[in-house]
Amino acid sequence: MKEFHVVGIGNAMVDILAHAPEEFLEQNGVEKGIMQLIDMDRAVELYSSIGPAREISGGSAANTIAGIAHLGGRTAYVGKVKDDQLGEIFAHDLRAQGATYETRMAPKSEVAETGRCIVLVTPDGERSMNTYLGVTEHLSPTDIDTDQIARSEWIYLEGYRFDGPESHEAFAVAIEAAKSGGARVALTLSDPFCVERHRDAFRAMISDHVDLLFANRAEIMSMYLTDDFEEALSRGAADVDVLACTESEKGAHILSDDDRWHAPAIPTDIKDATGAGDLFAGAFLWGVTHGHGLETAGRMGCVAASEVISHIGARPEADLRALFQKHGLI
Amino acid sequence: MKEFHVVGIGNAMVDILAHAPEEFLEQNGVEKGIMQLIDMDRAVELYSSIGPAREISGGSAANTIAGIAHLGGRTAYVGKVKDDQLGEIFAHDLRAQGATYETRMAPKSEVAETGRCIVLVTPDGERSMNTYLGVTEHLSPTDIDTDQIARSEWIYLEGYRFDGPESHEAFAVAIEAAKSGGARVALTLSDPFCVERHRDAFRAMISDHVDLLFANRAEIMSMYLTDDFEEALSRGAADVDVLACTESEKGAHILSDDDRWHAPAIPTDIKDATGAGDLFAGAFLWGVTHGHGLETAGRMGCVAASEVISHIGARPEADLRALFQKHGLI
Repeated sequence: MKEFHVVGIGNAMVDILAHAPEEFLEQNGVEKGIMQLIDMDRAVELYSSIGPAREISGGSAANTIAGIAHLGGRTAYVGKVKDDQLGEIFAHDLRAQGATYETRMAPKSEVAETGRCIVLVTPDGERSMNTYLGVTEHLSPTDIDTDQIARSEWIYLEGYRFDGPESHEAFAVAIEAAKSGGARVALTLSDPFCVERHRDAFRAMISDHVDLLFANRAEIMSMYLTDDFEEALSRGAADVDVLACTESEKGAHILSDDDRWHAPAIPTDIKDATGAGDLFAGAFLWGVTHGHGLETAGRMGCVAASEVISHIGARPEADLRALFQKHGLI
Repeated sequence: MKEFHVVGIGNAMVDILAHAPEEFLEQNGVEKGIMQLIDMDRAVELYSSIGPAREISGGSAANTIAGIAHLGGRTAYVGKVKDDQLGEIFAHDLRAQGATYETRMAPKSEVAETGRCIVLVTPDGERSMNTYLGVTEHLSPTDIDTDQIARSEWIYLEGYRFDGPESHEAFAVAIEAAKSGGARVALTLSDPFCVERHRDAFRAMISDHVDLLFANRAEIMSMYLTDDFEEALSRGAADVDVLACTESEKGAHILSDDDRWHAPAIPTDIKDATGAGDLFAGAFLWGVTHGHGLETAGRMGCVAASEVISHIGARPEADLRALFQKHGLI
């Protein structure tokens, strides 16, 4: 038995969540439903314009790892924060959830701060993300603990981490450690515009190294430059062992070799869509590392996604195991 | 017309809200339902023991001011934060709500940090507060803008501010400015143990200067050292123009001279009792500064308290004016 079920690598950040009317997005140049990278000046300007907010730890892969830990899985997380109050909050929340997190901590003298994501939630529950990466941008190959990765069954790589000067090298080191240590590789495409920025690097990694690919409809179509969702699914499935592709209220499609399953979405009152994909991935990975089949894992993903969009914040609040029981999945 | 309806003076802090089972309180020496002062070491120790949390701006008088501002009242707040990330969050959330807040900012070189309150919410919705005052403890007479107070109809003083080396002097300066500038004085007793620590100072201030006193059942009985609630109410009412005393699910009692009204509590599913008294006071003060009678103001207080305990965090989320309309109060 390996020490960890999943080691996740991602951009460490704290979410600053505020409600905003549709008009606010237009007036402030925020594009709806996606993640935009912003610099510190823009972060300060945008923050001064938004309404009262609340701060809840986020970061895509960190949410996924928190979800797996919440379910009782053994997890570790790799991502960089600064030795500041937001960094402390991020580290606390992950550890308090039961995940191992050896902070790659940037010192107080570092100018950049802990990353943050200003998440604007419109009345329809959709989230529009504005990310100041801060120190998390500088995760480098030396921050990767290759021994830790070898002690894990899976590594989970966050697509957003393709942004950043040494990101690709850091992922290469992690993948090499996974391959030589017998860990399988999962990747999430994260965002259609992130795919746009790094399509070639994504493609090379997917076809050469990725065992399990997470994506949503927009991301997979951007990946394969097609308007045809079915074509994108087929091409994705051909590149990896397992493709798990979410399609919002239409649920998720799981493809592996010639098999294909559909997991229905669980209807809920959407308060805040932040973290839907992250928790889908978390529950899915918990399922596959705990002896469940791909179809069940997909259903678990949909249950967890439904829970996380029913409240503000991208980390689980209700007991996911109890929800899995309620839906007859465990 | 004066520039402000209410200027509030209180302990500026960010709440760190986490769910905790009853056993956690016992095991960690947290007394249920009250506010305990803790030092930084204890704050670090307790924080490392609690589960994942979320950060939402708090501070008793600041919540009250946020409530009045949310309703459209003209407000200002006086309280001290440090030039750190939590200080920034506190200042942002108050200003974003529409309140004037000229931060009395302690510099980065200051060792103490922005105050925080670790709020543990048990399954029954009760909150147990553990407060590290940090720099807010050092609000001094020089931080009081006497001119600003003179430009207000009311000042609202937070009982918790009786803790701190120069607190009493700061309040004396504020009261003097109010009296000479024609502002009336409201005070909240804040907490029974806070009353215990400073009973004589509270009593002197109440009988000499306070026009409107806010308290709950436990606080007013502690104030007058009696087990007889009715006696405590009578004695309180004799000391001030108006006494507004809340009694949890039994609603609120409003006493003025020989008149007395009862405002019923609005039943709700209690998620987190944090801020109930603060929002009662906010809505009450909004009512009395906007031409409503004391009975209506009391009813408004109960509606606002009911809203704030129906979710996590001590600042209003739903539209309070719409709720007042729904209850036929405006």
